[in-house]
Amino acid sequence: MKDKIIINGAGLVGSLWAVFLARRGYQVDVYERRSDMRKAGFVGGRSINLAMSVRGWKALEKAGVKDQLLSNALPMEGRMMHSETGELTFQPYGKSDQAIYSVSRGGLNRALVEIAEDFEGVNFHFDHRCVDADLDENELVFSLPDGTIKKERASYIFGADGAFSALRSEMQRTPRFNYSQSYLDHGYKELEIPATADGEFAMADNALHIWPRGHFMLIALPNPDKSFTCTLFLPFEGEQSFENLQTDDQIHSFFNTYFKDAVPLMPTLLEDFKDNPTSSLVTIRCNPWQMNNRMLLIGDASHAIVPFYGQGMNSGFEDCTILDDLAEEYGEDWNKIIDVFNDTRIEDANAIADLAIRNFIEMRDLVGDPEFLLRKKIAAWLHDKFPDKFLPLYSMVTFSHIPYSTALREGHAQDELFKQILALPGIEENWKTDEVIAIFENWLTQKSNANG
Amino acid sequence: MKDKIIINGAGLVGSLWAVFLARRGYQVDVYERRSDMRKAGFVGGRSINLAMSVRGWKALEKAGVKDQLLSNALPMEGRMMHSETGELTFQPYGKSDQAIYSVSRGGLNRALVEIAEDFEGVNFHFDHRCVDADLDENELVFSLPDGTIKKERASYIFGADGAFSALRSEMQRTPRFNYSQSYLDHGYKELEIPATADGEFAMADNALHIWPRGHFMLIALPNPDKSFTCTLFLPFEGEQSFENLQTDDQIHSFFNTYFKDAVPLMPTLLEDFKDNPTSSLVTIRCNPWQMNNRMLLIGDASHAIVPFYGQGMNSGFEDCTILDDLAEEYGEDWNKIIDVFNDTRIEDANAIADLAIRNFIEMRDLVGDPEFLLRKKIAAWLHDKFPDKFLPLYSMVTFSHIPYSTALREGHAQDELFKQILALPGIEENWKTDEVIAIFENWLTQKSNANG
Repeated sequence: MKDKIIINGAGLVGSLWAVFLARRGYQVDVYERRSDMRKAGFVGGRSINLAMSVRGWKALEKAGVKDQLLSNALPMEGRMMHSETGELTFQPYGKSDQAIYSVSRGGLNRALVEIAEDFEGVNFHFDHRCVDADLDENELVFSLPDGTIKKERASYIFGADGAFSALRSEMQRTPRFNYSQSYLDHGYKELEIPATADGEFAMADNALHIWPRGHFMLIALPNPDKSFTCTLFLPFEGEQSFENLQTDDQIHSFFNTYFKDAVPLMPTLLEDFKDNPTSSLVTIRCNPWQMNNRMLLIGDASHAIVPFYGQGMNSGFEDCTILDDLAEEYGEDWNKIIDVFNDTRIEDANAIADLAIRNFIEMRDLVGDPEFLLRKKIAAWLHDKFPDKFLPLYSMVTFSHIPYSTALREGHAQDELFKQILALPGIEENWKTDEVIAIFENWLTQKSNANG
Repeated sequence: MKDKIIINGAGLVGSLWAVFLARRGYQVDVYERRSDMRKAGFVGGRSINLAMSVRGWKALEKAGVKDQLLSNALPMEGRMMHSETGELTFQPYGKSDQAIYSVSRGGLNRALVEIAEDFEGVNFHFDHRCVDADLDENELVFSLPDGTIKKERASYIFGADGAFSALRSEMQRTPRFNYSQSYLDHGYKELEIPATADGEFAMADNALHIWPRGHFMLIALPNPDKSFTCTLFLPFEGEQSFENLQTDDQIHSFFNTYFKDAVPLMPTLLEDFKDNPTSSLVTIRCNPWQMNNRMLLIGDASHAIVPFYGQGMNSGFEDCTILDDLAEEYGEDWNKIIDVFNDTRIEDANAIADLAIRNFIEMRDLVGDPEFLLRKKIAAWLHDKFPDKFLPLYSMVTFSHIPYSTALREGHAQDELFKQILALPGIEENWKTDEVIAIFENWLTQKSNANG
């Protein structure tokens, strides 16, 4: 008889991790604060569409559920930039066969819960709010809607209960628990571009659309029903801000000034803007992630990040891949697995948190900057010429399994490289040169010496 | 009739702030989780002695209680460094008339509560543990030892309830509340050097004694009863660590190796080491500090720092000075005062938090470093020669009322200055030179140009 395992949280990471554990033969009980999302129906308004990339797909494949989920995912091969005058510029994310995939958070979550329950025998307990934990006894205390209190113990407990994790709140009170929650000055609001009258996509459906406007931006991701889910990222306060978008006139005037080409595609703009909540953007870091080698936080519970690298779900799913790899390596010795995961994964989570904040600046601001675009082009050219020696940062994060912390360090090194390259006189006109290659090769040598 | 004001926490900052408010004619109720410290007797073992400097004295003076408290404070004019071979080096903190003062936390706290209650009519409510808060109603909920629950409202509430503030916990759940708690890898343990058999101090009593040993250190501060309170700062884990000091032999051998001259002065070393707890060292930052301009965190509740600059209490007391100055400036419009304080003080709290961590490295490591000592000497000489133009960082923090954030910026600028000065050939032998003065004057000019 294998150990009993509890997962707190039936979100994306919790339900996927339940599948992994059930496949290894464990009795898995998943407790979830919310009602069963399969019965309650989809609740919109706060769900930035997800961009699944290779780290996410790898976890789904390892869990044996990739094929079932691929059919509802829409490939986005690059960014489509919308200028203020409506000019479009397409910027591929990677090579021609590489894409990130737009998926619906609600749809994916429902599918994972169904697979876990129907095919893997996982027990889901909805409407169970975790209100307390006995960390020494490895016990969770749940409150039910009728007011009853239920206590449950297990050999191992995984906290997959999100950015506002109840388990983490309990751990935060223990000695020497490092913790930070840090909010951006920006909030976000979901809006919609529906399918056209002919039932078609209103814009190109193979791209993630961005209206970069310096301190704020609008993005749009395609859905299988041929609509786009749009998200406006805007400061809470200041000249252009949610605070200053109160009246219909203010909202109209703001959108007509900055997102002119999108306005005709958004028939319910005013209603959506007023009905949908303005949500905040938090980065959560903590250390340790585990207690007594028997309780472990995963996903947003230990490393919630801002959505600008599309790596929130991907990094949570990668937690599952790595834990499952460790289960193999250490023969399912979970004490050891939890200890090793805690010691090695935190650095990567901190790196993707930093990268995600950095990418916000890139998305809202730099994607319209000629020097930035030139750098992108030179990077793609170098990658083409030296595929084994140069992988652009975006590709490392999105299209590889290189640890995030390695990608972040390599990204800093690449900044140094491009500082040299972009300082060359006349680089704007002529960059496929021997001089650029010489700088690149010198940089490579220095880097390998430094690592050597 | 003036507003009713609640202070949560009867610690140093809470009881001093109560005196300030009572003097302005407010009805002040102070609630405190612990029992009355005047009845419970002094609880030792976790109370690093406090080093009062000018920021603390100014607040006490403004509150009209300085003279009563000065008699129990012992001046320390500098650091007395103890080398491994028992060699002593004295390093003055400032000019010959400047000192920091060793005071007992417990004694100071009792005195402030007595003054507030007996002379200012403040109502103290001990054994009241704040368990909840209604931020919209400006209401606190207290639990009493007999299990009863009491709710109290006030026009304004000040949270002076320390590093593990209950009020802050409630605020932390509100949207966009930035918060971090960060622990050092070092812990601390209190030890004692009693008075000699003749009833005298066992070492010089006009100094803060330091045994700097690189990654760890021992310090000692004098007490009015001619004993010294010692504190050992040591990593929790690693080669030299609390983890590796378990047996009597290990403890003896460690102290005999590193603190040989102190051992004969510590007759109860083993008992103290085993009986006293090992405590941790946390830095707390948050933003905002206020809710609805009616509730405000002060002292450790909003800005707990590590003790290595001796500014924890001083910065909390300075909160009171600044709030009282703002009360004057804004005619006791507390909505405005709380708003302005929140907008201006957080930067200074972050600066002293950084400086305190930086000073730990200085105390445990650099104070034994010849280059560091040379820099100190040159800094003192420059200050002597140009008293209006050059104030060493330590003096800005300890002997001035310059905002901490200004001191931190100036400290960075001084690092640049000394990088240039210490790079001069032969500087060790000869530093009272025209060349040093030329570098200094050039640095001054550049700084004043940069500040525009």
